[in-house]
Amino acid sequence: MESGWMPLVKYFTSAELCALLSVSVIETLMNVHQRNLPRVVIIGGGFGGLEAAKALRKVPVRVTLIDRQNHHLFQPLLYQVATAALSPADIAEPLRAILRGQQNAEVILGSVRRIDVEAKEVITGDGSVAYDYLVVAAGARHSYFGKEHWEKLAPGLKSLDDALEIRRRMLMAFEIAEKTEDDAVRRSAMTFVVVGAGPTGVEMAGAISEIARVTLVRDFRHIDPAQARVVLLDAAPRVLPTYAPELSESARRQLTNIGVEVQLGMIVEEIDESGVTLKGGTRIMARTVVWAAGNAASPLGASLGVPTDRQGRVVVKDDLSIPGHPEVFVIGDLAHFAPDGAAPLPGLSPVAMQQGRHVAKNIRALLAGGWTGKFEYFDKGTMATIGRHAAVADAGFVKFSGLLAWLAWLFVHVIFLVSFRNKITVLLNWAYAYFTFGRGARLITGRDWPLPP
Amino acid sequence: MESGWMPLVKYFTSAELCALLSVSVIETLMNVHQRNLPRVVIIGGGFGGLEAAKALRKVPVRVTLIDRQNHHLFQPLLYQVATAALSPADIAEPLRAILRGQQNAEVILGSVRRIDVEAKEVITGDGSVAYDYLVVAAGARHSYFGKEHWEKLAPGLKSLDDALEIRRRMLMAFEIAEKTEDDAVRRSAMTFVVVGAGPTGVEMAGAISEIARVTLVRDFRHIDPAQARVVLLDAAPRVLPTYAPELSESARRQLTNIGVEVQLGMIVEEIDESGVTLKGGTRIMARTVVWAAGNAASPLGASLGVPTDRQGRVVVKDDLSIPGHPEVFVIGDLAHFAPDGAAPLPGLSPVAMQQGRHVAKNIRALLAGGWTGKFEYFDKGTMATIGRHAAVADAGFVKFSGLLAWLAWLFVHVIFLVSFRNKITVLLNWAYAYFTFGRGARLITGRDWPLPP
Repeated sequence: MESGWMPLVKYFTSAELCALLSVSVIETLMNVHQRNLPRVVIIGGGFGGLEAAKALRKVPVRVTLIDRQNHHLFQPLLYQVATAALSPADIAEPLRAILRGQQNAEVILGSVRRIDVEAKEVITGDGSVAYDYLVVAAGARHSYFGKEHWEKLAPGLKSLDDALEIRRRMLMAFEIAEKTEDDAVRRSAMTFVVVGAGPTGVEMAGAISEIARVTLVRDFRHIDPAQARVVLLDAAPRVLPTYAPELSESARRQLTNIGVEVQLGMIVEEIDESGVTLKGGTRIMARTVVWAAGNAASPLGASLGVPTDRQGRVVVKDDLSIPGHPEVFVIGDLAHFAPDGAAPLPGLSPVAMQQGRHVAKNIRALLAGGWTGKFEYFDKGTMATIGRHAAVADAGFVKFSGLLAWLAWLFVHVIFLVSFRNKITVLLNWAYAYFTFGRGARLITGRDWPLPP
Repeated sequence: MESGWMPLVKYFTSAELCALLSVSVIETLMNVHQRNLPRVVIIGGGFGGLEAAKALRKVPVRVTLIDRQNHHLFQPLLYQVATAALSPADIAEPLRAILRGQQNAEVILGSVRRIDVEAKEVITGDGSVAYDYLVVAAGARHSYFGKEHWEKLAPGLKSLDDALEIRRRMLMAFEIAEKTEDDAVRRSAMTFVVVGAGPTGVEMAGAISEIARVTLVRDFRHIDPAQARVVLLDAAPRVLPTYAPELSESARRQLTNIGVEVQLGMIVEEIDESGVTLKGGTRIMARTVVWAAGNAASPLGASLGVPTDRQGRVVVKDDLSIPGHPEVFVIGDLAHFAPDGAAPLPGLSPVAMQQGRHVAKNIRALLAGGWTGKFEYFDKGTMATIGRHAAVADAGFVKFSGLLAWLAWLFVHVIFLVSFRNKITVLLNWAYAYFTFGRGARLITGRDWPLPP
């Protein structure tokens, strides 16, 4: 018993020692074989890609996750960064930190240019990466329907940088209104147009209205921020068009109650430096325009050489692979999954996460020489928040709105954030905002300073 | 008793009613007269300017605070944003939010171009603002000693944008090291040079070393971040040259212990894209260079038309006013205050805050037809932190270093932050970082993406 292990025995029980030993044996074996293991490349560290990477933790593969950003983003709360309630770090977590304990996974920060499915290679800005299995989870950006020059005038909301830019513009607009002595400039600075009444547009419009009417109300001396005009435009005849009609109507009513001007059936004809022109010629003079009107799938989908839909989404088979390439899977917002001719699944995080897990299972099946399985989406419902005590929720069997839906929204998002280390600061920030009506992150930062007058 | 006040009486006690009435009477009187009250313009919302504004709360003047940023910055913790421990919102608070309850104060977001002391006007980018009394608290920027082209290569640390830029560069350097297959590129990416061993340089070098050796240690698969080289350069023969020699020596030893290479008596001859050249020809190949070497006072000081020192600081009289203009005061980092031929006071927040309060008192005295008083600095001591459990402190009668100094630093900064609403999230972030060795704000954001290879 006089072995070199003795000192350790003093500190650990035998069960702990066994666990330690087996872990180190497994790790050593994995390291030895790592170079020869099949390689799974995952493009995109959003909800789908990250879930796929995590689900491959115990599978004998090398996982390489490639993303243009170094962080995973909790996108459902991105509008809260844009509206100064939360800080970027509250809703983002470095991908390396998430995967640091997963020995078979590595992260590459890089921009994927295209995919060569014949050579089984992903071509990035810094060279190419070979794969045995590929998971494309590159998501979507906002689309300007061919009017790309609108992007500068009306930023959309997909990344942290987008959110910080919108926050900067919104706060700066009130500053300009406070300073100017020109009535027209002031009116235009205090008009906020949100184009697109899907969940993001509804959340943005509600939050801007709340900021103006509550948060900023005592901050200025020459303007009354509560006089701000928040206009929510959509070409569709109702807000939240993917929701049940009674929820759309409830959302419209709740938006109107908190001071948002909802204008439906309106088509945006032109956006320029001074505002928005609607079809029919109506003009809205507005310094700040936010784009929440449309998505276009990542152009990477097209480089796969298989059919895509009108939004550029890759039409996947029912096991989420692409035709002719059982080793290539597309998931999340980039996938058009519509088995049996049903409507394609919407771009929601639960869809992406379930697909990520399913693809990991399929890869494991292929490695074992088995067959891939058909993906089935388990719909737990959807919800959108509008403002304090205002939301709509659709759990399939029951639809509800108002305070109850808002509490449900809060509950679900807190639960989701549990896996994030940032949970506690988010809760504190929310509690602070709830009780004081304040928003702590009202900071104007960015390299464009000083602004032109 | 059947008056219109009766309903109120049901809800308030008579004492409360009196208080309510007197407050509204005072506010009405103040509003009526506000237009005719003397106007105090304060340039700069840092420690000095903000303190002056707050100290004028009950003085019958109109206070106008002008700043280029919309927020007050808790600058002593700015290096923690640069090193990803805290978020911008943790150490910054909107000026409007701070002064919202002070009815006699307004905030203007604007950039002051120059001061016309004869016309009693401050000229901003959007027009001019007349004053009866002026407090110039415009602070300092970092100085490159005439080599302004170094600014892009070696950013300094004064604003939130500076901090986010340094954070981006530091995190990106590790990403590049992880990706590259070129040994020279990797070595250069993993070398961090901090120029200037004053408090900011010492804090930055210590924090970068801690990030590499502790925070990131399991994040990468192809590099060992602990191999990073952190070089702290200074032309002076010791670190923290304004501190007592024994504390300098202790700081140097503590820095060395946590892996910082301290190189003293080194003069930087050139900085370029690939590194730093020292006088004598030694070359340090480094992708990331941080500038903490020198300050230059705001150029606004020169526009006052009175003598300035070599760093551009305005030489003030012993009541903090400038020669020939008893209505103009200069405080904080922009002031050179050296009565009786003593060394000028250093650029520290306690100096600025005490001067801000003193100037408010002087303005009140002038309004009452009295005389201004001489400023006297009450020195409570100085301290600098180096890393976990490592710091130096000088309380005048006693000097100490190591764990005790670190605890003192922590205590003082927590107490200072009490007046900030962000205190609780800062405490949580610190507790998180302390116990997990993690840093939650490791986010690469910024418009320069994608970087050139």
